[in-house]
Formats: sequence, structure tokens, C-alpha cells
Amino acid sequence: MPDEPSAREQTSDKSRLETFSDGVMAIAITLLVLDVRVPHPGSGQSLGHALAHQWPSYAAYATSFLVIGIIWVNHHQMFKLFAKTNYPFLMVNVLFLMVLSFIPFPTALVADALQVREGLRTATLMYGGTMFGMAVMFNVVWLYAAKDRRLLVGSVSDEAIARGTRSYRFGPILYLVITLLAFLSPYLSLSLFAAFALYWLLPSSGPG
Amino acid sequence: MPDEPSAREQTSDKSRLETFSDGVMAIAITLLVLDVRVPHPGSGQSLGHALAHQWPSYAAYATSFLVIGIIWVNHHQMFKLFAKTNYPFLMVNVLFLMVLSFIPFPTALVADALQVREGLRTATLMYGGTMFGMAVMFNVVWLYAAKDRRLLVGSVSDEAIARGTRSYRFGPILYLVITLLAFLSPYLSLSLFAAFALYWLLPSSGPG
Amino acid sequence: MPDEPSAREQTSDKSRLETFSDGVMAIAITLLVLDVRVPHPGSGQSLGHALAHQWPSYAAYATSFLVIGIIWVNHHQMFKLFAKTNYPFLMVNVLFLMVLSFIPFPTALVADALQVREGLRTATLMYGGTMFGMAVMFNVVWLYAAKDRRLLVGSVSDEAIARGTRSYRFGPILYLVITLLAFLSPYLSLSLFAAFALYWLLPSSGPG
Amino acid sequence: MPDEPSAREQTSDKSRLETFSDGVMAIAITLLVLDVRVPHPGSGQSLGHALAHQWPSYAAYATSFLVIGIIWVNHHQMFKLFAKTNYPFLMVNVLFLMVLSFIPFPTALVADALQVREGLRTATLMYGGTMFGMAVMFNVVWLYAAKDRRLLVGSVSDEAIARGTRSYRFGPILYLVITLLAFLSPYLSLSLFAAFALYWLLPSSGPG
Repeated sequence: MPDEPSAREQTSDKSRLETFSDGVMAIAITLLVLDVRVPHPGSGQSLGHALAHQWPSYAAYATSFLVIGIIWVNHHQMFKLFAKTNYPFLMVNVLFLMVLSFIPFPTALVADALQVREGLRTATLMYGGTMFGMAVMFNVVWLYAAKDRRLLVGSVSDEAIARGTRSYRFGPILYLVITLLAFLSPYLSLSLFAAFALYWLLPSSGPG
Repeated sequence: MPDEPSAREQTSDKSRLETFSDGVMAIAITLLVLDVRVPHPGSGQSLGHALAHQWPSYAAYATSFLVIGIIWVNHHQMFKLFAKTNYPFLMVNVLFLMVLSFIPFPTALVADALQVREGLRTATLMYGGTMFGMAVMFNVVWLYAAKDRRLLVGSVSDEAIARGTRSYRFGPILYLVITLLAFLSPYLSLSLFAAFALYWLLPSSGPG
Repeated sequence: MPDEPSAREQTSDKSRLETFSDGVMAIAITLLVLDVRVPHPGSGQSLGHALAHQWPSYAAYATSFLVIGIIWVNHHQMFKLFAKTNYPFLMVNVLFLMVLSFIPFPTALVADALQVREGLRTATLMYGGTMFGMAVMFNVVWLYAAKDRRLLVGSVSDEAIARGTRSYRFGPILYLVITLLAFLSPYLSLSLFAAFALYWLLPSSGPG
Repeated sequence: MPDEPSAREQTSDKSRLETFSDGVMAIAITLLVLDVRVPHPGSGQSLGHALAHQWPSYAAYATSFLVIGIIWVNHHQMFKLFAKTNYPFLMVNVLFLMVLSFIPFPTALVADALQVREGLRTATLMYGGTMFGMAVMFNVVWLYAAKDRRLLVGSVSDEAIARGTRSYRFGPILYLVITLLAFLSPYLSLSLFAAFALYWLLPSSGPG
């Protein structure tokens, strides 16, 4: 599906990219509820008990909802600094969204492993690996756009670029460490993922 | 995933927030149909009979569709009074959407309990609890934005703010009472939820 | 969830309504593919044979995709004549979308009945009933907006309004007749639904 | 559902068409993750082993995500050359989206066939057939819009039109050949589909 050549010069439609990205993020975040299943309690077990037993599904729903919500907010804040797009940047964003859209799968994996009490380390590594990939993609998107101020709006200061670069660089290291903690204890690792989701939620952690 | 600092001052892009919220609400409302399942009638039973037997699925679909539709309309009306957003407000909205996106689950739970004739009280409490959470989140969103006129457009009168605050405050009390009625009779409680969904639908209940 | 009163006068934001409606229609149309399932052929049966056996799934997918696509185009054309919205009109649209979002269910029902060769009349009546409901809702939306030119743009002529009213009135009668033909033959009825979907697709049937 | 006649002349709302198309593409791309299922390893098998065993699901997810992402970018680039829409063009786009939204099904088919090691040729033919249909629809959309410069913006040169026509024409032939290679070896055919998805991803393949 080759590209129409005469479109070569037009690179400034950031808004359709934002709409598409927002659409994908809105869908990924809403699909999370599909993995909270209606339980069918066996005989002698009440629905209340069955619902309580699947607490990991609710915790996983809430954590990943916050995570994708925070990613959306940050994508949103980052894009305010961009003035335009180009072909490779659209593709970089597709890769970003590919990692993001995958989140419901490791989320369901962790929720399931917590319930059947098996394979929790493996599930946590998958979850953490996806979070790590997400943090890497934030760097890729940012560095592609910021290199030589390629796609930035003119008013962004050099210092702001340097600060941005520093702050995104922190993500992959943090998530890699939390992920590797799963070898010590998957519960510790998962608690830290949930704690960071709650932490980013706090007003004081943002720029507001 | 830390925020890009130099975006600190830009707080006025309400429109991307609306698009994202509308996307999530549009998806949550459309996913409801996934819980209306094609029945596979056993031998000796007709498809018509099997379809009639799953009437709770249709009632649950219609009720929750109206509920989410009304929430969308109200979110829409409320946001007309806002001039801008900021970081904590984006997060408050993520929490609002987290409760909203959960609605398909207790909806399916109630529809299922009505069909298997078991666990209806528990299912109703889950449904009512979600509705209560929704009404609480309406207050949180409103109060955050209205406090010291933080995010409001300049033309909103003090009296209008006070009226808004009074009207939202009413919601959690109403939904808590209806939810607790499930201890008397889940059918009464569910009927009231459906009745209120129909009531808000009426032109006279709105500002038109 | 009562409405914020001071929003009473602002009734002109048609665009957020269009975005929400487009979102719901885009999701409903895309969910149709979820009912085309990967077959698991039994021993001695090839995948090719199993795929051929489920031809009703493909036919149902294509027909309902065209139907929702045509509904979207018509909703789109109709809304060009509207200048504003109000509270009851938002609610009328929620009802419109409630019928539309239901389409994947009777679609799956018909596809299933064609494959198991049972319950086809019942499934066709459900499908036709939904189409009939859709055509009724087109009239409700149009008549609400056109009454006393309530929501119309100023430039629409009286004659154009009368033509619109006549053309929408035709829909429910047509779909009711096709639906009732299922009592004679479900195959005839379904063929007519597919034929009309193809017919509306033709350039000559539109205003272009 | 006949069209409102007086809308006949208004043909310039390209933006609602883009929003609808972007919505459908965003949903189709995000639904792909629903076919990556949580495995339930049997006794004596670890979760890690079960996850490794379903590698075709991840490969299929990544390939089809890139494919739909690239289709979105190209749709996006093509639409920059269009100034308006008309009724038949809306319908042509519905057909385009009908093929695109189908992609999750052959994707799941191939992933499944790779895991059960049966029916891979048939599954590959279905996948390739869908890709071929996609490339055909790119031509249909382009040729409809470009014929007599029907829907193009004024500034597009004759030479650019000719180049566009030549480049789109290439797609169906390419995808037909790759599809037919499945008769020699489905693995070869699938590898080429994945390779082309990666190739189009490269900056050098685009107009940037």
C-alpha cells in the first residue's frame, strides 16, 4: 500500500493523529472490563463469595485503567509540545499504540494467575515487560520528535527539552527494576506497579 | 511516566478531554450488547422460548444503555460550564471514567442473576454500588472544577454554581437509598433504577 | 444525575452529539466481526470445509455492515440540516443509538439459525423487528427536529421538510412488510433485507 | 432509509467521514488483542511454556497491528488530497471499512492454524485474500475520487494523480502473488506478509 507521493510536503496534521491515538487509548481502556467475568458459583457457594474470590480481577481492572489513563494524560501533555507530524512519526506512534493496546492481555494474565495461584511470576514478568516496553516507547516518541527540534513548536526552550529527555529516560529503568523484583517476589513487584499508578494519580506528581 | 514540565502552563485544552471521555462512554455503551448472548436452546425447546427466557438481558441492556446515555448527556452539559482543564482534573476524569466503564459488569451480573434466580441481592448491591460511585464521581468532578471557580467559564453566576452543587449532591443519597432497598427486595431496587433511567429520559426532567 | 441548570440556554453544540453518535456507530459496525468465529473442525473435516459451512456468518457480517454503514450515511446527511440540539433531542438520539447498537445481536442470531437450521423464523423476526425499530427511530429523530423547524438551519425550505417527512415515513412500512414475510418464508425476508442493503449502496439511490 | 433530498448539494464534509473512518480503524486495531487469550496450562505444564507455545498469537497481533496502522497512515495521506465527499464516495468508504474491519478474523484464523498445525494453507489464503481485497479497495477509493479530479483539492498536479494511480495499482498484484505463494508454502507467504508490514514501517519507504 504505497503512499501517495504528492502528500510529501504536508506534515502538519497533528490533530488526526491525536484523534486516532485517543480512539485507540479509549478503546483499550474500556476493553479492560471485558476481563471482569460474571462468576458462576458452584453448588453450595454464594455469588457474594464467588465475587469476593475474584478480587484480583477488580484490582487488575483498576490498576490498568489508571495506568492507561495516566499514559493518555502524558501522551496528551507531550503532544502539546509538537507542532506537526511526518511519515516516520506516524509509524512510531503506531508502535507506541501497539504496546499500549497489548496491556489488556498481561492484565488478564496477572488477574488469572492471582486467582488460580499458579504462574504468578511468569504473569508478572509479562506485565512488567509490557510496562517497560511502554516506557521505552515514550522515549522513542519523544526523542524522535525532539531530535533537532524536528516536530516541536518553536516556543519550547532548550532547557525544557533537556528536562523532558531526562524525565522520560527515568521510566524504563524504573519499570525494569520493578519487573525484575518479580524474581524475588511477584507480590512485591505487583504492589509497586499499583503503588506507582496511584502515585502518578496524585496532583503533586503532575505539573498542575 | 513523568510529565513534560514545560507543558505546565498550558491547561486549556478541554476538547481533547471531551473527545477521550466521549470515546470511552461511546465504547462502554456499545459493549453492553456483547452481554446479550445468542441462546442455544436444548432439545424440545424453541428459539422463541429461549429468547423470551432471557428477557432480563434485554431489560438490563436497555436500562444500562439509558443510564450511560444520560450520564453522557449530563457530562456534556456540565462540561459546557468549564473553560479549561489541568493535570489533577484530567486524573479526576480518569477516575470518573473508571467507574463508568465498569457498568457493563454489574449489568451482566444482574441479568445473569435474574435468569438463574440466584444471588439477585448480591448482584443488585453491586449494580447499586456502581451507580452510587457514579453519582459520587459527578460530585467530585463538579466540586473540583467549581472550587474557587477554578475551571469555570467566567459567565457562570454564583447562584448557578450553588444550584449545580445542590443538584449533584442529591445523587449519591438517592442511589444509596435505592441500593439499600435491595435488602428489602432486589426487585423493588431494580425497578427503581429502571424507573429513574426512564424518568431522566423525559423532556420535563431536563433543562430543555 | 440532575442537570446543571445554568446550561439551559446553550443548545447549539451539535458537534459533540455527532462525535458521540459516530463513535457508537463506528463501534457497533466494528463489533460485528466478533461474531465471525474461528471454527474448530472435528476430525475428518478440513478447515476449508468448516469455513465454507459458516457462510451465513460472512453474509450476516456483510449485510449488517452495509446496513449500519448506510444508517451512518443517512444520519450524517440528516444532521447537515440541523443547526442545534437541546436536552430532549439528545435523549431521542440516545434511543436511536440504543436500537442501532442492538443490531449485532439479531445479526448473530440469524447467522446462528442459518447454520444450525433451527429457529430461523424467530431469528428473522428479531432481525426485522430491529430494522423496523431503526426506521421508526429515524422518523422520531427527524420529526422531533423538524417540528416547527425546531432545530433546523434557517435555509431549509418548507418543501424540503415535507419531502424529508414523506421519505422517512416510507421506512417503517417497508421494513414491517419485509419482516412479516418471514411468516411465509424467512429466506425471502432475509434476501430482501440483503437486497435493500445492496440497493441503498448504489449511487443512483442516493442524492449524489 | 431514504436520504433527505435537500442535502443533495452539500458534499464538502470530509471531516465527519475521516472521524468515522478513524474510529472504525482504531477499533479494529484495538480488537486484535482480544484474540490473544489467557492460556490455561494443563497439569505438568508451566504458564511460561503455555505462553511460549502461543507465539503465533503474538506474531499475528503484531503483524496485523502494523498492517492496520499502515493502512490508517495511508488512508490519512490519501485523504489530504481530497477536498470533499459525496454520497457514492461515502458508500465506497463503507466498503473499504468493511474489508478492513474483517482483518481480525483471518488474523485469528492464521494464529490458530499455526498453533494446532492444521489448515494453515486455508488460513493463509483467507488472510491473503483479505489483504488483496484491502489493496483493491485502496484503488477503488482512489480512482473514484481522482476520476475527472472529482473530489480532489485544486492544487494536486496531473503528474501527482498519475503517480498515485500507478502506486496503488501495484498493491493488488503484489498481494495476489504473495497469497498464491501459499500453495507452495504457507510459511513463505506469511513471512512475506510480515516482512512487508515491517518494510512499510521503515522511514525510507514513506514520503517523509
